[in-house]
Amino acid sequence: MGVLHEECGVFGIFSLSRKDLAGSVYFGLHALQHRGQEGAGIVVNDDGVFTYRKDLGLVSEVFDQDALTKLGEGNIAIGHVRYSTSGSNDRTNVQPIVVKHVKGAMALCHNGNLTNSYELRQELELSGSIFHTTSDTEVISYIITKERLTAPSIEVAVERAMDKICGAYSLVIMSPTKMIAVRDPNGFRPICYGMTPEGDYVVASESCALDAVGARFVRDVEPGEMLVFTKDGMFSDRTHTGKAERAMCIFEYIYFARPDSVVDGCSVHEARMRAGAYLADEHPCEADVVIGVPDSGIDGALGYARRSGIPYGVGLIKNKYVGRTFIAPDQKMREKAVKMKLNAVPSTIKGKRIVLIDDSIVRGTTSARIVRLLRDAGAKEVHMRVTAPKFIAACYYGTDIDDPSCLIANNHTTEEIAAMIGVDTLGFLSVENVVKLPDGGKTKGYCTGCFTGEYPTPVPSERKKAKFERKISEKGE
Amino acid sequence: MGVLHEECGVFGIFSLSRKDLAGSVYFGLHALQHRGQEGAGIVVNDDGVFTYRKDLGLVSEVFDQDALTKLGEGNIAIGHVRYSTSGSNDRTNVQPIVVKHVKGAMALCHNGNLTNSYELRQELELSGSIFHTTSDTEVISYIITKERLTAPSIEVAVERAMDKICGAYSLVIMSPTKMIAVRDPNGFRPICYGMTPEGDYVVASESCALDAVGARFVRDVEPGEMLVFTKDGMFSDRTHTGKAERAMCIFEYIYFARPDSVVDGCSVHEARMRAGAYLADEHPCEADVVIGVPDSGIDGALGYARRSGIPYGVGLIKNKYVGRTFIAPDQKMREKAVKMKLNAVPSTIKGKRIVLIDDSIVRGTTSARIVRLLRDAGAKEVHMRVTAPKFIAACYYGTDIDDPSCLIANNHTTEEIAAMIGVDTLGFLSVENVVKLPDGGKTKGYCTGCFTGEYPTPVPSERKKAKFERKISEKGE
Amino acid sequence: MGVLHEECGVFGIFSLSRKDLAGSVYFGLHALQHRGQEGAGIVVNDDGVFTYRKDLGLVSEVFDQDALTKLGEGNIAIGHVRYSTSGSNDRTNVQPIVVKHVKGAMALCHNGNLTNSYELRQELELSGSIFHTTSDTEVISYIITKERLTAPSIEVAVERAMDKICGAYSLVIMSPTKMIAVRDPNGFRPICYGMTPEGDYVVASESCALDAVGARFVRDVEPGEMLVFTKDGMFSDRTHTGKAERAMCIFEYIYFARPDSVVDGCSVHEARMRAGAYLADEHPCEADVVIGVPDSGIDGALGYARRSGIPYGVGLIKNKYVGRTFIAPDQKMREKAVKMKLNAVPSTIKGKRIVLIDDSIVRGTTSARIVRLLRDAGAKEVHMRVTAPKFIAACYYGTDIDDPSCLIANNHTTEEIAAMIGVDTLGFLSVENVVKLPDGGKTKGYCTGCFTGEYPTPVPSERKKAKFERKISEKGE
Amino acid sequence: MGVLHEECGVFGIFSLSRKDLAGSVYFGLHALQHRGQEGAGIVVNDDGVFTYRKDLGLVSEVFDQDALTKLGEGNIAIGHVRYSTSGSNDRTNVQPIVVKHVKGAMALCHNGNLTNSYELRQELELSGSIFHTTSDTEVISYIITKERLTAPSIEVAVERAMDKICGAYSLVIMSPTKMIAVRDPNGFRPICYGMTPEGDYVVASESCALDAVGARFVRDVEPGEMLVFTKDGMFSDRTHTGKAERAMCIFEYIYFARPDSVVDGCSVHEARMRAGAYLADEHPCEADVVIGVPDSGIDGALGYARRSGIPYGVGLIKNKYVGRTFIAPDQKMREKAVKMKLNAVPSTIKGKRIVLIDDSIVRGTTSARIVRLLRDAGAKEVHMRVTAPKFIAACYYGTDIDDPSCLIANNHTTEEIAAMIGVDTLGFLSVENVVKLPDGGKTKGYCTGCFTGEYPTPVPSERKKAKFERKISEKGE
Repeated sequence: MGVLHEECGVFGIFSLSRKDLAGSVYFGLHALQHRGQEGAGIVVNDDGVFTYRKDLGLVSEVFDQDALTKLGEGNIAIGHVRYSTSGSNDRTNVQPIVVKHVKGAMALCHNGNLTNSYELRQELELSGSIFHTTSDTEVISYIITKERLTAPSIEVAVERAMDKICGAYSLVIMSPTKMIAVRDPNGFRPICYGMTPEGDYVVASESCALDAVGARFVRDVEPGEMLVFTKDGMFSDRTHTGKAERAMCIFEYIYFARPDSVVDGCSVHEARMRAGAYLADEHPCEADVVIGVPDSGIDGALGYARRSGIPYGVGLIKNKYVGRTFIAPDQKMREKAVKMKLNAVPSTIKGKRIVLIDDSIVRGTTSARIVRLLRDAGAKEVHMRVTAPKFIAACYYGTDIDDPSCLIANNHTTEEIAAMIGVDTLGFLSVENVVKLPDGGKTKGYCTGCFTGEYPTPVPSERKKAKFERKISEKGE
Repeated sequence: MGVLHEECGVFGIFSLSRKDLAGSVYFGLHALQHRGQEGAGIVVNDDGVFTYRKDLGLVSEVFDQDALTKLGEGNIAIGHVRYSTSGSNDRTNVQPIVVKHVKGAMALCHNGNLTNSYELRQELELSGSIFHTTSDTEVISYIITKERLTAPSIEVAVERAMDKICGAYSLVIMSPTKMIAVRDPNGFRPICYGMTPEGDYVVASESCALDAVGARFVRDVEPGEMLVFTKDGMFSDRTHTGKAERAMCIFEYIYFARPDSVVDGCSVHEARMRAGAYLADEHPCEADVVIGVPDSGIDGALGYARRSGIPYGVGLIKNKYVGRTFIAPDQKMREKAVKMKLNAVPSTIKGKRIVLIDDSIVRGTTSARIVRLLRDAGAKEVHMRVTAPKFIAACYYGTDIDDPSCLIANNHTTEEIAAMIGVDTLGFLSVENVVKLPDGGKTKGYCTGCFTGEYPTPVPSERKKAKFERKISEKGE
Repeated sequence: MGVLHEECGVFGIFSLSRKDLAGSVYFGLHALQHRGQEGAGIVVNDDGVFTYRKDLGLVSEVFDQDALTKLGEGNIAIGHVRYSTSGSNDRTNVQPIVVKHVKGAMALCHNGNLTNSYELRQELELSGSIFHTTSDTEVISYIITKERLTAPSIEVAVERAMDKICGAYSLVIMSPTKMIAVRDPNGFRPICYGMTPEGDYVVASESCALDAVGARFVRDVEPGEMLVFTKDGMFSDRTHTGKAERAMCIFEYIYFARPDSVVDGCSVHEARMRAGAYLADEHPCEADVVIGVPDSGIDGALGYARRSGIPYGVGLIKNKYVGRTFIAPDQKMREKAVKMKLNAVPSTIKGKRIVLIDDSIVRGTTSARIVRLLRDAGAKEVHMRVTAPKFIAACYYGTDIDDPSCLIANNHTTEEIAAMIGVDTLGFLSVENVVKLPDGGKTKGYCTGCFTGEYPTPVPSERKKAKFERKISEKGE
Repeated sequence: MGVLHEECGVFGIFSLSRKDLAGSVYFGLHALQHRGQEGAGIVVNDDGVFTYRKDLGLVSEVFDQDALTKLGEGNIAIGHVRYSTSGSNDRTNVQPIVVKHVKGAMALCHNGNLTNSYELRQELELSGSIFHTTSDTEVISYIITKERLTAPSIEVAVERAMDKICGAYSLVIMSPTKMIAVRDPNGFRPICYGMTPEGDYVVASESCALDAVGARFVRDVEPGEMLVFTKDGMFSDRTHTGKAERAMCIFEYIYFARPDSVVDGCSVHEARMRAGAYLADEHPCEADVVIGVPDSGIDGALGYARRSGIPYGVGLIKNKYVGRTFIAPDQKMREKAVKMKLNAVPSTIKGKRIVLIDDSIVRGTTSARIVRLLRDAGAKEVHMRVTAPKFIAACYYGTDIDDPSCLIANNHTTEEIAAMIGVDTLGFLSVENVVKLPDGGKTKGYCTGCFTGEYPTPVPSERKKAKFERKISEKGE
């Protein structure tokens, strides 16, 4: 039950045979909704005329039947779900960004975070550019547009832009006639493509979104690769592949991605089962039942149970109706509100020694409440096992772990944390094993910056980011 | 993944020490939201002044912070969540019903369905009464009010009303100074009560709602019992206990209630695990993994797995963002919409022989789609096991199984159904075992009318119900 | 610029040739919107099936295209706009009231206020009736329904009900096959009927609503008369005509009705022009220009100007965009908010001696602000003339002048009021002349209770009304 | 009752003593609401932090109490109401435009239309700029920003920008420390400034908005003048004054401005009265009463009546509740919908020879309906007089008369138009007299392009405007 947030999900579809693509993007974004719940947008391209809608809210809040109908028809369409990391949470920052330009329109979706956006932005502004948002994505749009003035094609403009931007970026770009998918040379964020039985090309942050529109997964976009989809087929531009070491975010497997997705060739569900199994090895214990914190601790619990031989049980029930509008009316009730989201199953818990699996401990408050829930339900012992190492450092590549001073693990030992959250024993997965989650260690090249403080690229000073954000009030729209 | 709907959840709280009860009812109703998603209402009683709000929608849609604040303070408060069985789905039918009367105000919440409401209503109208809703609950209100004119107290009026009304009713009633909980003599629908550490009395349809407000479960209300909560304490009126045979709805255990609830002394979670175990005995099979359809098939799958020794796995993922506003934009996409709600986990399914556990097959269409999902994900064999017997008859006690001609099991053999939904083998739980679910057969007295067509009370002709519903158009508000 | 509020407008249409009546009622209610801005409702009768929608808000807020379409077709339809006098301002009090009853459905709209509703309601409750609203209209519904059990027809039931109810009532009633228009024997509130070129019958509070649907005015309903519209034509039941003295509300002419309406044979516009002329005779003055407070003082200003020979001018402009949602953000700005609604035209005002015509002075605060506006714009002198006598007593027949202690004229002399609002001279129309407004004195029989404290019927004690209102909190919905 | 639309209203306030300026801008925009009903926006400047909100809708729809509170405090604030002429009607085009830039933030409001925006925009895009809107205002923002990179101050940047932009522009610009008001050298659109008793500077499109916030009118901004308000006082930059001939839009006096405003020293109300008087001279007639079409024909009617000696009367009543959400439900009813907006006053019209004053005839359909209304009410003769010359040409300076082929006067003689709209006689004001409206001919220099086809500046070809608009679909948001 992590409280970290992924920043974004991207989706695009290119069809030669049909024009009713808005519905497909709607379905695709729904499947990626877990990657961002703050805003959503779709742009439909009808022979160069871009019709779009984007707003704050869930996909189902931004789009009703009427809104989808008004998007009209087109043979390329892209969409985005957003959680704000860079850029204030206001309406203008919602993606896709649509650029209206004499050299032709362009729409762009971005998942990730640049590490040199401050410098790029300052340079652009000093040459007379005006920014309308505080997002990295607009910086990328600008750079591509500038290159486009002299480049023979949009793909060359994108290729040149990749020389300038640093950090994490998985992009879906749409020109009047092309759809382009790009992954940064480190490959921080996932992006893959597939094909429908009718021959439509689909790109998406995760394979579960391909499933959602009936597309067959073809392969992941490689780090540094650019795929260009045109009416003549798909072309791969590998100018930037191999220019950096692969540094795929390991937390995609632990928490961000959906368990039914296959990311860079590895099943997310299996990675989480494997995390439970490693924990059983690293931190065994005597207990009666293994339970998981829904939803992302379930797979780990099953893995721990299978490896340890301790039975798996359903110990916590999540109230599926507690959504964004749920309120905790008064101070006293707020304490009890955790019971609204989760409740213990007494017959599983009472008198038992419990192994409790969760995916992370960020500040510790949520964990403490869950443990109290189990104690109240009669748990004899609670042994907590976490399917990730301790968070000790900020992430610069698109998640919101940006203030290390809030992280409980940064200031306390495991024993102290155990005491604070009230468990009998506590164990974190080791950094050594966390990088083996995807496939047991066969593949290398994962970013573990938030666990180690060691980053695969240079990182910006925090002050720069803050400076841009604060210039225009957060309250603006 | 049943498509049956429970009609209602009721909740009430009586405090001697505090007046901020609206928030408690809000929490309580949230915990009961699974029992009714079409409407919600709360009435707060401040020394005889009843302030209320009720409307169509989820609890979190009807009540925001402002709405709760406007309900003000009071030392008794009751609330209701509704799914419409009797009564059109319009705003006036939303409960609680508030009666403004010269003998004092009254508010009333009802879970269940009367079997003689047509006769009672006709009799009342012919003596000059006007009904504003098409619900049974207004009939009950009228009868209590009429009795109240001559009864020495509201509890005597309720007691006399119980002589006249037949069928299923769990009621929470509030007068200016009292809170009353009633359960019909057959005990069709659950209702229990508890107490908070501060001494507040709480009544609720299920124990999970007691948990939600920090109350300790005390006991279930007995069939035919009336509990009266006043400032002098709690009194039990047992005039109608034992007047009929217990006929608790067995489907509460299979599908309606939450797994973390304890209903009539039995854990719902354990009942569902037991259903899986019985199925393993009745319909064993050779397979590689047992999976459940989320959410209510999960417990049964775990029970089947434990009993059979076949490993339990996570094979289907539910998209938690697919809510009431989710739309399937066009005809062709609608087919694919099931993938939006559920998706298969390839690593669990591919190449495996699957035991698939679900709680019911009503029309068969949903099951067919789920099976296709598994086949598409590479399942080698699919053996479906259902944690309930076949539905063959209507329910008259508060669920919406009211047209037996729509029930697939009414017209087809098990083999035919297996062929229709595309499974290799299919097995339903036996009626013999279904009544043993709560505690292995120790307790007797369950209604299995929908599985057998044999009912514990006389039932009305369908025409009567229809007649009242149609007199005023469904479209009215 | 009075701050009094009329309570209601009623409208009905009966057609033999067409069924798309919802749109006609929508237009009719729009034309009556000035009579009530708090709620609106329409009921369409399709061969006995009543489909309805009613809610708080303006007609255009309650009904959009979709809502009108959902009302469906029918050959009778009635509607209502409401300002709440009796009955709290909550949703359940919005009319029409729809009665679902074994003897047949009925819908009812009411303009006016009963004087014996407390007694009637108590009697009904003590015989077991339940009221859902706090409005007089429900009392009328109940009495008609009770009579209907034994009456041979609905019109006989209405006729009998008229024996029991006292006070002001203009009603439009709809049964499955009939439309009925009723006016109380005193004829307090207007109601008239007309016919479209296609032969549809239309009833409405004012003739401007007949114009709005293209109907020709036929005649006013007489005091005490009941008109019954059936497929066989229109019948007049005159059982109650002449049973009381005519007591038409004179304030309908001064303020409530629209100037383009003809009420009881007299033009409202002419009545207001006449008020100005009488004022010129009663309170002449030397001045340069006569201006009116928009909208209802304009006609009086024109009448004063013509009679006195002083030129008429446009001195105050009303901002047509200041509607119900306009807010005055902070205390200091609130003072200035009157300028938002009205502004002076400098070229008309500067250096001039002004005659200012308004329709009433209730509390005096609005008048004081308008006078200050004129002074600030450079008016040399301001002579205010009011087209009504002083308010000194409550109204029991359907307007909200119910607390005489708030009325400035009840506690102050004309000279004192002049000083308080800052005018050089002040003159009110005499009671003697006010009853001559409609036609120069030819017709007799007007209620002037609010100007004299003498009422045409017995009036209730204030306590009774209060008692019913307070039993259920105002905050309920 | 014209159907032309003014494009915009601008407002700004600069205070040294208080910071609660959002409410003042709200009031100011309310007073300017007649200049644009499609969108509204406010930006508050708190020491360089710009907080803003802007959206489609009326001022009272975009801003409620909560929204104003969230704008926070600041000592400069500007606002805008918009009707879209250049730029699609979507949310991104709503003003003020806020520029976030390394050289400091800037916000900008614009009333008018450039004549060289196509050329400017193309030039900017070809140097790498990205436009987010299709509005002229963004072009102005860009040019100022580019100049700002090298200019010693924002006012020098604005001054240099004025060398490049051509056409109509009244601007209010806000930098972190300054408020700037600009009027184009031709002075097409009005803009003035005033001061509150507390010493706050206020700029607004019309003087009625100064009244609304309690400010005293000081003077109009001169054509070509730039006023700079800083904490050290107000400075006038007259670099561009006298560089072009004055060409104030005469239609501001006829229709756009509010009658209570004083524009360039002349009362709008008096100008309209004068139009009526000129018409009485140019087109006299024998009649019984002069009536005006509300709202803008009223003053002209009064002027005609005074000059001709024919009595002024109230002949048409406007339903003040018919707003933007009013719908005409079906085809047949739509015909009648004009009666919803206007109704005749029978006692004024019946049997009379009518002089009907309106401000313009654009397509003729509205006039035809009004005439029919009068005929139906019994008018014996209808003589229409129009307070403007015939429209025959497009406007390039900020109104939406852009397709001359739709203008009835472009294709028909006065006699033909009279026959088409059904009047006995018809007379238009002469071009010779129209320029005398403001002050009887003393002041020269008015644009009459729409009446003559002769423009004070070069005008763009229509194709250029269209090209930009169509590149991005109108449906985008």
